[in-house]
Order: sequence, then C-alpha cells, then structure tokens
Amino acid sequence: MTEFFKGIPAIKYEGPDSTNEFAFRHYNADELILGKRMEDHLRFAVAYWHSFAWPGGDPFGGQTFERPWFGDSMELARLKADVAFELFDILGQPFYCFHDADVRPEGKTFAESKKNLDAIVDYIAEKQASHKAKLLWGTANMFSHRRWMAGAATNPDPDVYAYAAASVKANMDATLKLGGQNYVLWGGREGYETLLNTDLKAERDHAGRFLQQVVEYKYKIGFKGTILIEPKPQEPSKHQYDYDVATVYGFLKEFGLEKEVKTNIEQGHAILAGHSFEHEIALAAALGIFGSIDMNRNDYQSGWDTDQFPNNHAEKALAFYEILRAGGYTTGGTNFDAKIRRQSLEPADLVLAHVGGMDTCARALKAAAKMLEEGELEAARKARYAGWDTPAAQAMLKGSLEDAAARVSAEGLEPQPKSGRQERLENLVNRYV
Amino acid sequence: MTEFFKGIPAIKYEGPDSTNEFAFRHYNADELILGKRMEDHLRFAVAYWHSFAWPGGDPFGGQTFERPWFGDSMELARLKADVAFELFDILGQPFYCFHDADVRPEGKTFAESKKNLDAIVDYIAEKQASHKAKLLWGTANMFSHRRWMAGAATNPDPDVYAYAAASVKANMDATLKLGGQNYVLWGGREGYETLLNTDLKAERDHAGRFLQQVVEYKYKIGFKGTILIEPKPQEPSKHQYDYDVATVYGFLKEFGLEKEVKTNIEQGHAILAGHSFEHEIALAAALGIFGSIDMNRNDYQSGWDTDQFPNNHAEKALAFYEILRAGGYTTGGTNFDAKIRRQSLEPADLVLAHVGGMDTCARALKAAAKMLEEGELEAARKARYAGWDTPAAQAMLKGSLEDAAARVSAEGLEPQPKSGRQERLENLVNRYV
Amino acid sequence: MTEFFKGIPAIKYEGPDSTNEFAFRHYNADELILGKRMEDHLRFAVAYWHSFAWPGGDPFGGQTFERPWFGDSMELARLKADVAFELFDILGQPFYCFHDADVRPEGKTFAESKKNLDAIVDYIAEKQASHKAKLLWGTANMFSHRRWMAGAATNPDPDVYAYAAASVKANMDATLKLGGQNYVLWGGREGYETLLNTDLKAERDHAGRFLQQVVEYKYKIGFKGTILIEPKPQEPSKHQYDYDVATVYGFLKEFGLEKEVKTNIEQGHAILAGHSFEHEIALAAALGIFGSIDMNRNDYQSGWDTDQFPNNHAEKALAFYEILRAGGYTTGGTNFDAKIRRQSLEPADLVLAHVGGMDTCARALKAAAKMLEEGELEAARKARYAGWDTPAAQAMLKGSLEDAAARVSAEGLEPQPKSGRQERLENLVNRYV
Amino acid sequence: MTEFFKGIPAIKYEGPDSTNEFAFRHYNADELILGKRMEDHLRFAVAYWHSFAWPGGDPFGGQTFERPWFGDSMELARLKADVAFELFDILGQPFYCFHDADVRPEGKTFAESKKNLDAIVDYIAEKQASHKAKLLWGTANMFSHRRWMAGAATNPDPDVYAYAAASVKANMDATLKLGGQNYVLWGGREGYETLLNTDLKAERDHAGRFLQQVVEYKYKIGFKGTILIEPKPQEPSKHQYDYDVATVYGFLKEFGLEKEVKTNIEQGHAILAGHSFEHEIALAAALGIFGSIDMNRNDYQSGWDTDQFPNNHAEKALAFYEILRAGGYTTGGTNFDAKIRRQSLEPADLVLAHVGGMDTCARALKAAAKMLEEGELEAARKARYAGWDTPAAQAMLKGSLEDAAARVSAEGLEPQPKSGRQERLENLVNRYV
Repeated sequence: MTEFFKGIPAIKYEGPDSTNEFAFRHYNADELILGKRMEDHLRFAVAYWHSFAWPGGDPFGGQTFERPWFGDSMELARLKADVAFELFDILGQPFYCFHDADVRPEGKTFAESKKNLDAIVDYIAEKQASHKAKLLWGTANMFSHRRWMAGAATNPDPDVYAYAAASVKANMDATLKLGGQNYVLWGGREGYETLLNTDLKAERDHAGRFLQQVVEYKYKIGFKGTILIEPKPQEPSKHQYDYDVATVYGFLKEFGLEKEVKTNIEQGHAILAGHSFEHEIALAAALGIFGSIDMNRNDYQSGWDTDQFPNNHAEKALAFYEILRAGGYTTGGTNFDAKIRRQSLEPADLVLAHVGGMDTCARALKAAAKMLEEGELEAARKARYAGWDTPAAQAMLKGSLEDAAARVSAEGLEPQPKSGRQERLENLVNRYV
Repeated sequence: MTEFFKGIPAIKYEGPDSTNEFAFRHYNADELILGKRMEDHLRFAVAYWHSFAWPGGDPFGGQTFERPWFGDSMELARLKADVAFELFDILGQPFYCFHDADVRPEGKTFAESKKNLDAIVDYIAEKQASHKAKLLWGTANMFSHRRWMAGAATNPDPDVYAYAAASVKANMDATLKLGGQNYVLWGGREGYETLLNTDLKAERDHAGRFLQQVVEYKYKIGFKGTILIEPKPQEPSKHQYDYDVATVYGFLKEFGLEKEVKTNIEQGHAILAGHSFEHEIALAAALGIFGSIDMNRNDYQSGWDTDQFPNNHAEKALAFYEILRAGGYTTGGTNFDAKIRRQSLEPADLVLAHVGGMDTCARALKAAAKMLEEGELEAARKARYAGWDTPAAQAMLKGSLEDAAARVSAEGLEPQPKSGRQERLENLVNRYV
Repeated sequence: MTEFFKGIPAIKYEGPDSTNEFAFRHYNADELILGKRMEDHLRFAVAYWHSFAWPGGDPFGGQTFERPWFGDSMELARLKADVAFELFDILGQPFYCFHDADVRPEGKTFAESKKNLDAIVDYIAEKQASHKAKLLWGTANMFSHRRWMAGAATNPDPDVYAYAAASVKANMDATLKLGGQNYVLWGGREGYETLLNTDLKAERDHAGRFLQQVVEYKYKIGFKGTILIEPKPQEPSKHQYDYDVATVYGFLKEFGLEKEVKTNIEQGHAILAGHSFEHEIALAAALGIFGSIDMNRNDYQSGWDTDQFPNNHAEKALAFYEILRAGGYTTGGTNFDAKIRRQSLEPADLVLAHVGGMDTCARALKAAAKMLEEGELEAARKARYAGWDTPAAQAMLKGSLEDAAARVSAEGLEPQPKSGRQERLENLVNRYV
Repeated sequence: MTEFFKGIPAIKYEGPDSTNEFAFRHYNADELILGKRMEDHLRFAVAYWHSFAWPGGDPFGGQTFERPWFGDSMELARLKADVAFELFDILGQPFYCFHDADVRPEGKTFAESKKNLDAIVDYIAEKQASHKAKLLWGTANMFSHRRWMAGAATNPDPDVYAYAAASVKANMDATLKLGGQNYVLWGGREGYETLLNTDLKAERDHAGRFLQQVVEYKYKIGFKGTILIEPKPQEPSKHQYDYDVATVYGFLKEFGLEKEVKTNIEQGHAILAGHSFEHEIALAAALGIFGSIDMNRNDYQSGWDTDQFPNNHAEKALAFYEILRAGGYTTGGTNFDAKIRRQSLEPADLVLAHVGGMDTCARALKAAAKMLEEGELEAARKARYAGWDTPAAQAMLKGSLEDAAARVSAEGLEPQPKSGRQERLENLVNRYV
C-alpha cells in the first residue's frame, strides 16, 4: 500500500440519510434495479488521465497538483498504477480506462514507448488479477505529442498515419491482453485549424480508411470488444470530423462501418455541439450506434470542455432513462471522464469527487428505472403517436406522395393540433427525481 | 407600375469609386469572371418572404412595416407580385424564390388555399413572361400555421403527414409550372421541443420516407430541377433533424437518397450550428451534396437567426472560394434569405439592402476567382499533402493496419511536424480581399 | 365563473407521494420554513402577459392558442381579467404582475389607451377586493408597438421620450392605485441594433435622466414600493443597456440612483448574459441592489429567451440559497415570467405548468433553508476566509501597497495553496436537494 | 545578432500591389493620416508572452515550438530578450509589452524572482537604449503559478494578497524604470470557480482596495503612465470580476477610481463577453475610461480565448473608427495580444503573423480615418438625433416626469417611427473598407 490515500476508508453504502462524507448515499452496488445489480447497470469506470496524469494545468496556469508519481520513469509509472488501483479499491469501481500516454512514460523512439507500454501492461495485468477493477476500454493518445499537431490518421504526412497505425495497434494489443471490453478512438486532432491549408476530402477519406483498418485488425486478433468513436465538435481543433452522433453516423455509413462501430458519448461534448446529453444518447440508440458513456458535466456558461464531475441527478436521470430505453449497456459503461478542479489539491478531493459522481448517477438511474417501470411516460408517448398504428397510416408510408396527398381532398382533412403537454410531462418526471 | 418604388431608378454598375447610393460598385452582371458572366456565376435571387411577406415583427414587437399589399385577398396578392417584380427589375435580379404562403392568401380549407395558389401561380407565370426574373426555387411553408406546430412529415398525427404531402405536391407542381430550377425543403418544425413526448426514431423514419416520396414524385412529373434540403440546427424547434450538412448527409445515406438530394446552405444556419459558412460549403462539396446558398449573415453576438444582409466581403470571399472550387452552381444560386431590419421602413431600404448584398457578393466572388486563378493557395495546399501522392502512401491505405504499423519500426519513423503556415495563408488571402 | 378552467379543481398540497397531477407535492403555503410561512417566503406571482396575452407565436409561426378573450375590446379585456383571477384562485397565488398592454386594448390615441387602462384598473381593483391575489408589480410595455422600435427613453425622437414618460406615469399611477409593491422597468428596446446610427452616450444619458424622473415621481405620488430594473443582455435589441446586474449597478452609480433602484433578476436573462442565475442574485445582494426575481428557465442549448417554467429544483436551490443569504425578499417576489410551450394548448397545461413551477421552487426553498440552517456550507466558507479576520490582514487593507509588499520579505512569505474543495461542497449541497 | 531570424529582412512598406510576403502592403509608418503619422496613430506593440514565452501548448497538447531560449536560466532570458528586440527591429515596432514571468525565470523565493527581474530589466533597459522599441506597458503575471490558483488580490489567504502587492510593486517599479507608458492589471484569477466556496463581497472589496493602493503607489513613485484594467468575462476563472467594460466601470465607481483607471480592451475578450469589439470601445469612450487595445481576433465558432492575429480589416475598421471618434490613443496603443497557431513552427511565421496583423490594422485605420474625414456617417447620426437639440427637448430632460408626460396630451403626440437606415449605413461603410 502506498501512503497516498492514507486514512481514507473504503467507501460503503450508508443510505440517503448518512452525513458521512466518506460513504455512498445512493450507490448500492448489489441493490437490484429492474432485476439487475446496480453495479451491473452502471458499470462505472475511473479515467486514468484526469485522475492520475493531469497536473492541474489550464491555459493560463501550470501544475497545481503535487503527486509523488509525477515524472517520467517506469518506477513512477508503477507507483501511479499502484495508487490508481488503490483508488479503484476504495471506490469499489469495477472498471477503469486509459490511454497509453497515461500509463507509461513516452520513449525517445516508438520502440522505447512500446517497450514501456508492454512492461506497464504486464504490471497492470498483475494488478488486475488481484483487484476487482478491470479494463473498460483502452485507447491511444494521438493528440498530446507534437507529432500529432496536424492530426493522426488525417495528418498531411503519411508517416504520421503509419505512426498512428502503430500506436493503435499497440493499444489494441494491450487492450486485448488486459481483457478490455471496448477500444475507443477520440480524434481530438482529426479535424482542422483552418480550411485554408486543409484537404477536407482527403482527410476524411484517410480517417475512414484508417477506421476500416482498425475494424479489420480487431477481427484478425480476435478482439471481441466494441470499437467506439467518441464525438466532439471542436477543441483542440477548430473543427473535428467527429462533431456529434449524427455526424459520426454519416461518416460510418460513408465507409460502410455502421454495423461495426458504435459511439462513446460524453455529456460535455454533447453540450459543446449544441445538444442535450439525452439527445445524443437517444439519437445513437435510434441509429443503432449507442455504445458507452463518458460521464461528466460541462459548465453551461463556459464554451470549452470543463469535464466536471456530474452533480445534478435530475438532469442525469433523463440520460439514464434513454440508456435504459435503449436496453442498457452491453460492453459499454459509465466512465468518469471528469477531473477534479485544479484547486482540489487533496487526495480526499479525488476520492470524494468520484463518490459524488457515483451517487449522482445512482440516484439518476433509480429515478429513470422507476419512471420506466411505472410506464406513464412511455404510455403518453405511445398515445401521442397512436394514429400511426392504423393500417391507413402505414399504407400511406408505403404509397406515393400523390396517394397521401389525395387523402386531403378525399377526406376533407383539416387536422387540428393537439396539446404536446410538455409541462405535464416535465412534472411527471419530477415525481421521480 | 405601382407607386411603391417611385423615384427609385434601376440600379446600374458604376464602379468602385461611385458614391451614388443607387448604383452597383462591384456587381457588373456582364463582366467575365473565369470566363463566365458574373450574373451566371452568382445567380442572385430575391426571397419573397422576407422582402414582401414579413411585417417587421420580432418576439417582442409587432408589425413595423406598412405595405399597401398587406392583407389576405387575392387582389393584394397580385399587388404584392407586381411590386415584387418591380424590385426584381430595379435590381436586375435573374431569380426569386417563394413559399406558397408568401404568394397567396391562406384559405379556409386546403382546397381554397390550393385554388389561391394556382391562381397566383398563373399570375406570376404571366409576369415571368414579361420580366427577366425567373423562379430559382419554390417551397411549401409547413411551419407557420398552427397545424404544423408539431411537425409536418414528422407530425404525431398522420393526417398532418397527408396534409404535408398535399402541400408539397401542390408546390412542386407550381415550381414545375414556373420552370423553377430547384425545390427546397426546410423543416423548421421537423424536429422536437422535448424528447419527453417524442418518438425520435419514428419521426426520422417518417421524414425519410416522405423525402423518398418527394423524389419519386419528382421523376413522375418530369421535374428536372434539384431537390434541396436546407439544414438548420434549431429555431423554431429546440432540435431540428436537419441540423447541419453532416447530419443531412447521414440522413440521406440512411434513406438511400445521397445521389438524389443536395443541400441549400445558409450562412446564418451554419453559424448557429457552430460552423463557419465556408466549412458547410466545403463539406457539402466533399460529400457530393452541394446545391445552393441562402445568403445572409448572422450577428455573431446573437444566438438566434438574424438573417441580415451580408456586408463583409472578406468573409464571403472564403465562401465563394469554396463554391468555385466545387465547380460553381449548377441549378443552385445565391438567394438573399435576408431581411432588412425592422427599423428600415423605407422602400429605398429594401432596394439598397439588396444592392449592398449584391456588391458584397460580387466583390467576394472577384477576390475568390482571382485567388483561384493565381493558384498560390491551391499550390500550398497541394504541397502540404504531397506525401500522399507516393505509391508507398497509397499502398498503405490499401493495406492493413499491421502493414502500416510495420513501417514505423522498419523505417525507424519519428515524423517531425511541419509548419501549417496558417497566418501566411491568411495574409495571402488578404492580398485578394 | 367563466368556463375556461371548467373541471379543474383548486390545487391543494398533498405531499411528495401524491400522484394527483392537480395537487402540490412540495408547495405548502402555510408550512413554516425558517420561521416564516412558505407563501411569505416565495411570494409567487403569475405573469399576465405569458399566461393571458401571448397567442403562442414564435418567429416562424403564428397563433396556436385559441382563447375566448383574444381580441381588442374592453369586454374581452374584462373576460381576460376574470379568467386570470380564476387561475390565481386555482393556484392560491398571492400575486400577479402585468404590463398595460396585457390588460387593456391599445387605443387609437394615447388618451384612448389611457382611458382603457383606467377602466380596466378599476375592474381589476374590484377583483382584488374579492380575491386573494394582489399586484406584485406593474410595468409599461414600451417595446411591442412600432412607436418604440428605436427605444422609449432612449429614442432618437424626443416625442417618444415624452410618450414614454406618459406611459410610465400612467402605469405608476395604476400600480399605486392597485397597491402594487414594486414598479418594474425592462428596457427591451433601450439599446441599439447597430452602433452605426447610435449615439451611445446620449442614449445612456437620456435613460439615466428618465430613471431619475421616475424616482422623483415615485416620491411625489407617495408610492412606497420599489423601483426595479430588469437586466437583459440583448433580444430584441442587439445590445441592451441593462445588460446584467453589474452593468445596471454601474448605470445606477453613474446617475446617483444606487440607493433608489434595485434589480428584478430573471434566470433566462442571466443565462443569456453568460452568468448563472445564482451569480446574478449573489452579485446584486453584494451590491445592495437585489430586489425581485423573474422565475423561469432558459433552454441551455438555445441562444434566445425561452422563458420556460422551471423544473430543476436542484439548480434553483442554489438561487434560493442566495436569496435566503441576502435576507429574503422585502417587496420582491417570485414572478413566473414563464410561458407554456406553444404546443401546450389545453387550459390544464396552463394550470399545471404553474403547479410544477411552484413545486420546483418550494422544493428548492426547503433545500436551501435546510442548508442554511444546518450551516455547514457557511462554516466552510467562513473557514476559507478566516485569515482575513486577523488584525494584521485588516491592517494590510488599510495600509499602502508598499506596506503589504514589505511583508513578503519581512516574513519570508511563500504562500502555499489550499484545496478549494469544490466537489466536496457540491456533494454537501447534494445532501439537501 | 542571434541566428533566429536569419535570412528574414527588415519589413518595409511596398504598397498594396506588392506580392512580397516580407513587406507591408498597407502599414506605412510615416504616412500621414488625419495629420498624424500612421505609427503615431497605431502605436503597435509586440506581446512578449505569446511571441516568446508560449511553448505552443493547448489543453490537449504540449509544446510544439522549439526555441533556443526555452529554459529557466538568466542566460536564456537574455537570449530571449535579444531575439525579441530583433523581432521589434524587423517589424519596426515602436512598442512591446511584458509580464514579469515572460522576461525572467521564476525564482525559488520572491527575493530570487525579484533579483532576476531587476537584472533582466537592466538588460532590457540597455537594449531599449540602442533600439527603437519602448515599453508600452508592463504587468505582473499573477495567474500562472500555483500560488495564484485562488486569486491574487482576491485570494482567501491574505498572504497571497501581500505577495500580489509585492509583485505589482516590483512590476510598477520596473515599468517606471523602463519608461513604460501604462501599467496593466488583468485579473484572470480574480474571480471564482464556484460560488459555493466564495465570499463574493469580500473578494470584490479586496480587489477594490488593492486597486486603490496601486493608484496611490503610482502617485508616490511619480509614475506618469495610465493604470489600465483589462476586462475579460471568464477563462481561466468561471467568472471574472472584470467581466466587461460596463462591469469595470461599476467597479471603478464603487471604489472611487473612475477618474484614475482606464481600460485595456481586447477583441477576443469582448467577443467572449457577448459584445462586439467596437461596442466595448465605444462604451469605454462614452464612460471616459478608454485607454488601450489588446488587438487580436477570436474565432467566432470557439467558446474560448483563441488570441488569433486579426485579419479582417473591414471588421477592425469599425473598431478604429470608434478609437478615432474618441480622439485616438493618449498613452495607449495597439498591442498584439495574439499568438501564432501552435502549428506555425517557423520563425517566419512569427514575423509574418505580425506583418499581416499590422497591415490589417493599417488598412482599417485608413478606412476609418477617411470615413470620419468625409463625415457622412457622423452627419447621418447627428441628423437622427437632431430633435434633441431643441430647447423643448432639453427642457424636458431637466423637468419632471409629469412635465414630459403632459406634452403627450397637450400636443396630441402620436410619434411616427422613422427608418433607422441600417443597411444604407452598412453600405456606406463598405465604400471605405
């Protein structure tokens, strides 16, 4: 045991009335919700990058955190992993996620970086064997190092494409080795800074082909997990090709990948793209590409990615409602892609931010499940569209524009609007949250 | 002749040094640009709705304009058409666009509305015969009347779908009769106010089937023009299904329409969706769905659709550059979907807003054409991607992820970033604008 | 009794477990919170304009509501008042608010408008006498009619200034007569569309002098209520002079009115200005100009004023916490400047939207009160600033820059940052909401 | 001479037709504009931080620039200064600006940092003696180091306040020594992350007292320059106390400093606060607190501070028009608070970004000056407000609300709106840009 979380107990469920900061008030892993354990519904994961690799910097300030594992040696990387698994244990988290750059020191060459990665993956594999937490997903960091500044698969330099292929291959191999359930691609630099120097079509084509190669490789190595794309509209790029769920869908269709690749949806990214979180989930579900969640919240008054821990259960209930309607996660999960504020210097802050986030999600899940179970909302929705269940309505869809048009004069249609009852439905939701 | 524009002369080109308000300083219809008449490049259109049907209201105030043709009779509708063609003549505009609701009074029944439409279309056809301006595109207003409040093709009530079919049929027929070159669908209510009462999947499916029916009908009646979808992210709906170009592309792919339908891109809608105007054009071109332009500008500090006349030629030059790179318009054009401010009460304001907009576009076109002709920008772009022209790079795209990855160790690749030269390219553009 | 709300019962408190749509689950008027009746804390008001005057239009569509009182006669104005008081009764609302234009038909001349106003005020005074609801505040609509299109007190035409003076005088007189507790000025047109035609300084000066005249008139007529300015950044104007609370404060200071005028803060306006609601309240309290609240919520993905009923109690708890910290309302209250969606056609929608909003606020108030009562949050805040309570720290503020600076070398200061504990405080709040 | 800019010539004016990248096309220092040299109008400054201290990082990536002076020794600091003055010479820039942290390595203690600062200031003073460029303004970086994470003057820890006092004192002394013409305070951390842990009133009070101490110290040391506050709404803080010009004005009034302190207005900050750049300048001028400009541009589609070099002269012409209307700069200037994109790796990029920015400003200034000289815009504005020049209108302002109101019935006023002619004025502006 390291000393980092010294004095901080494993977090237990104590119920809503507990005033113990170091307890769950809502998250009760074994409690059955819709016949499934809460843990199996929520499938929480800790994000290695925010919690262990981020130094607390922002665009106007540098490091605020002072962590004993900060530095570039393999020894420190192992210490970092030790502390990480201690956090997973404290929280009882079933999963975690990482980029290569989070877990191993960057080498001077690709070979050295790869060697570092392999070694730390071995180390983590050992830790997995003796701890509860498993890998939800792995990914390659192809945005931080200066080589990626103009893109990875979309780089004007084909050598960088090759480097990206090598990086993804290494990380898919690592993910397979660790039994990861998904592999994620977030293309923070797969976009552009200015159209003036960009060949948009070529870059999209390269990105599409790259993704096909990734899928082909998945089958080759027998990786059974899901390949996930994480949409984001911009930042760091001015424009990112994977803007939002609808954009990703078109991209997958263009490259014949809509059955192969799903989406990892982040609340903050949804907000930055002008959507509600629940919209993105509902749309992905409707399009058959819902995969997993990066759980956080974006400050509504900030125009950049704030990656804060979620704290409004009423809001998140609408997201979990859409997840439940979509049948819940399969390989996906609820990954806390959330970082404590740079002023939150204490180890306890890191623990308690997760506790708060987990409780927020648990409370949201319970509300969503009850809402679905009692069925009033679904009944209202079904009633609103009931007209479409008639044979005449279905025939109209199969027929021609003229056939449909002909009904207006034949039947003297002058349809009268009906109340959408939005506020009543909002009140209904408020019974549950 | 009506008296409305009394005293306002036909606008002529007088060159950049003219201080005559009632003259073009940049738009010179017959001037050859890249071997084509400026008029044939720009294909300007006046929008009937903003210029003749809008009373000057906003969410906090009512009518400010007092127009002699305001009212609901066929006589006033004819007067409106008379004045409209007078404006087209004054400006020398080759095109105009309309919704049914702009040109005819709403009837008490569909039959009466249709009768009104047919009559005014006959009237307009006569006017076309004796005037220069022709129909760029027609469309159905399926968002203003209360029957559309919950959508047209996406309405929960199938009777409204039928009504929408009848409306589009009537307007496609009218467009065909008037020799319109395109038919546009903008789905301001094809979206939702709240997910709580919305069956997202059903609504998308209905919208997709509706569009297929529209395309089928096009062929049936022998309409040679282009079917265009106009993307907008929201407003009036909280979320609109045709959010932006990328979203429309995915939608078209889903319903097998990507070869049949193109996009009508509006500057203000691009901005509201978080994109630059030139991005949307360039993306549509890359995806093969660029069709036409709704030219205006959105106030950058306003979060709603301001539909102002464009006045920054430097900005618009980037848009026209992408249009020229895409080969220019075929059936499309530059439609001023722009409204004079509600304080701009005078007839001269209406004329001069268009004059300013046309000059802005003409200046932008000339700059864009010269930039393309001299070729420095394209040469720089080509040079940046030159690495991809090698057989090795092309082979890498055809091969597997492992093949690409293998190059890294085989060749000891450690790619070094190269300057993107953004500011130098921006300076280059400034030579032209 | 009119028939409008036929079948809808008076709303009673039934407690959180009630599933009766037509009941309060949280709002219990007589329940004591921090020793004061809930009704006296919340001081709810219905807004006449949204609930009775708005036809359901938006920028892309017209009237959706069909109300028996729509029209321009005095008879319909009385019917509207009858229905309004029926709603107040159903809800048990203690207050309501109105603009002149909401309650009386516009006349052809000022004199006729005034006569209409006086008559309807007499009618409303009678209704007040026999009903519970009283006037929270009155105001003049100086933004809808075309005469105001370029501003009221800030109009380039001094005759409009005079007209504004007459309008405000008439409405202050009416407010006094009805025993209104505040008089509000919202300057939707007190701003500009373009700087190009605007004399910013003159307009500010006129607005400032106008407000002084209003305050002088208040004393002259013996109005004991509070004069309130309602900040909004823009819409309908491109820029409004009363942008936000900080701007209003500077404006009041400039014209010597900071002791005379307070603010009426709206959630949606705060959001549009880039602030959280609680920020605006806290700032107004810190500056001594907190007055009253326009309660609603703005859609976070919409860039215009959506004026929705509030439905997230967790969010509103932070607002009520700041109100309680500021000592609660004096003459102010919680006015629902909120409108049902234009698809919410049924009378029950109007009632239940208010019920939901009232419950949301009641739940928020209870959480806020408990949070304040238990004191953990305040204790944490106090502890964070405890260093400032020392005589040395206070002396430093009184002394010079050099004195303060000298401490650094004298004491060898190298201050170490301390955790801000943001997530822990957010968790703490979540114990209460 | 260092080798850094090897091969790059001093930039000369060659006129608009030049195709030489390394030449000014519009900036001609000695050309007279409104009777004053262009250089004396524009008073350009290079920002040390962006051009010499920034490593090219962003929130998702690290250093991209490889500069020979990066590192923490005094020797490297001198090399940096050498290169900086070479850039000033190449550009012929009359001014530059810096924070302490840009020019000297941070020491282990305040005393060491101070010693470093003093030494480098001596070095820079020598360089000034033999070069053209002088100090436009100095400032203290009180936001990057972790000690400032919770604010400088607004820190909960009074020791940090003392440290801030020592820092500002040191930098004011340095500015005085170098003959700087202004001293700037930008409070990136003078705001809050969450209201939950913030004593808003105490923090504002401390900030106000601190600013008073700064002003007192200015007089004490005989600094003749101007104290400037730089408004910004947020980032890095969630909320910054110096949100915008209007907010700063209220703050200055509160602490009796409105005659002592002016504003340094940045385009990007204006945009982030929801204002146009020209609005902020015009407002500052109207309030008597216009001081200086941080020239850059913010990407209109990005919600964070992008600090790009300006490249749209048509837009900037409106800003310079307001500057000229306000009488131009006194001690202020046009500081390029702009950074080359992180992909712009070459020394030439750094030079040419400034060249483009200077040309953009020069072209804007010339257009603005001509517009002012020819006077049509001012004449139109004056005409619009002419009604206020009458004795009756002036008397109305001096009189009471009732007096003004009485005019309506006495004179039977029913004021008719007049066109605001916005588009015509926009067209007029387009004659000049």
